[in-house]
Amino acid sequence: MPDLDFWYSIGSTYSFLTIMRLDDWCSEHDASVTWRPFNVRTVMSQQKNIPFAGKPVKSAYMWRDIERRAAKYHMHAQLPAPYPISDLALANQVALLGMEEGWGKNFTQILYRIWFEEGVEAGSETALSEALHRSQQDPRLILSRARSPDIVAALEAETLRAIKLGIFGAPSLVVGNEVFWGDDRLDDALSWARVGHVI
Amino acid sequence: MPDLDFWYSIGSTYSFLTIMRLDDWCSEHDASVTWRPFNVRTVMSQQKNIPFAGKPVKSAYMWRDIERRAAKYHMHAQLPAPYPISDLALANQVALLGMEEGWGKNFTQILYRIWFEEGVEAGSETALSEALHRSQQDPRLILSRARSPDIVAALEAETLRAIKLGIFGAPSLVVGNEVFWGDDRLDDALSWARVGHVI
Repeated sequence: MPDLDFWYSIGSTYSFLTIMRLDDWCSEHDASVTWRPFNVRTVMSQQKNIPFAGKPVKSAYMWRDIERRAAKYHMHAQLPAPYPISDLALANQVALLGMEEGWGKNFTQILYRIWFEEGVEAGSETALSEALHRSQQDPRLILSRARSPDIVAALEAETLRAIKLGIFGAPSLVVGNEVFWGDDRLDDALSWARVGHVI
Repeated sequence: MPDLDFWYSIGSTYSFLTIMRLDDWCSEHDASVTWRPFNVRTVMSQQKNIPFAGKPVKSAYMWRDIERRAAKYHMHAQLPAPYPISDLALANQVALLGMEEGWGKNFTQILYRIWFEEGVEAGSETALSEALHRSQQDPRLILSRARSPDIVAALEAETLRAIKLGIFGAPSLVVGNEVFWGDDRLDDALSWARVGHVI
């Protein structure tokens, strides 16, 4: 079974497509994917990679492209979703804590639904609390633990690992040392994992 | 037969993939595509869209991604090709003149081969002259005509049309008012032309 790392950041718009379809895609292709939240804002600020802020034409295209592709995948979405999100670090700290405890993937999928289907900004305490609640977690307790120095440091460490791999944006699929950026590169990554080239 | 406009700029790296495979792709899908050179540098400068300059990690990824996808399409390429190119406007003025006279597509394909296979920078007089020569055109005559006010103005007019369509980068496929950006959106564009949504 091919083994891939899915590096994502809550706050990334195109990650919506991947987060919503990845489970089905894994079943269909008999693939196994490890979900790895990181702080894409740290990475992109460091690399002066500002794809949408101050770029209205490219931003409008991004939403239209997501809309067309969401329809292709039969996903419901109210677009544009609130963007950018406020507390990107906190959202991903919660996700990382959840990964350690086994509820992180479910939480991420629910939070993206709240963000993209219900229009509540994903870095807000409202959205985070609601997503935790729907994940059968105690929002007050989890938000407090997600803010602890341990989890803050853990997300920073994962972000450093992402940078060392050559990641510059989200979502990214990684197979060994090969980075595949974008929801539209899932099949390339799988092909690489299986046969060592893109077919 | 679906009708699409292929907006490209000599100087765009990802356009290599589309320029090299578009004829086969059209035959395979029974599609008809109009090639429309424009000045992507004007558009991107205006929109402060600087995807690679000063971004070594993203640039390295771009070359690797093109390399993997070129192999997928069985294209030969010596990467990285010299980038950015020098006289982007002149190269596309030549291409536009060639489109008016029926040799523009062939010239573009030959010039990309010289740039990506032989490593000669595509905006240089060396590359342009050689590509014109191989296209059975007189380099001195054509380069002089390509620099005339008429052709300069014609490329600027096409670039303005691209901007009005919402184009922000190259390559772009356009179907009616729908813009599809990137070599990886060819199939989305075709599907839109055929059935009005992405399948």
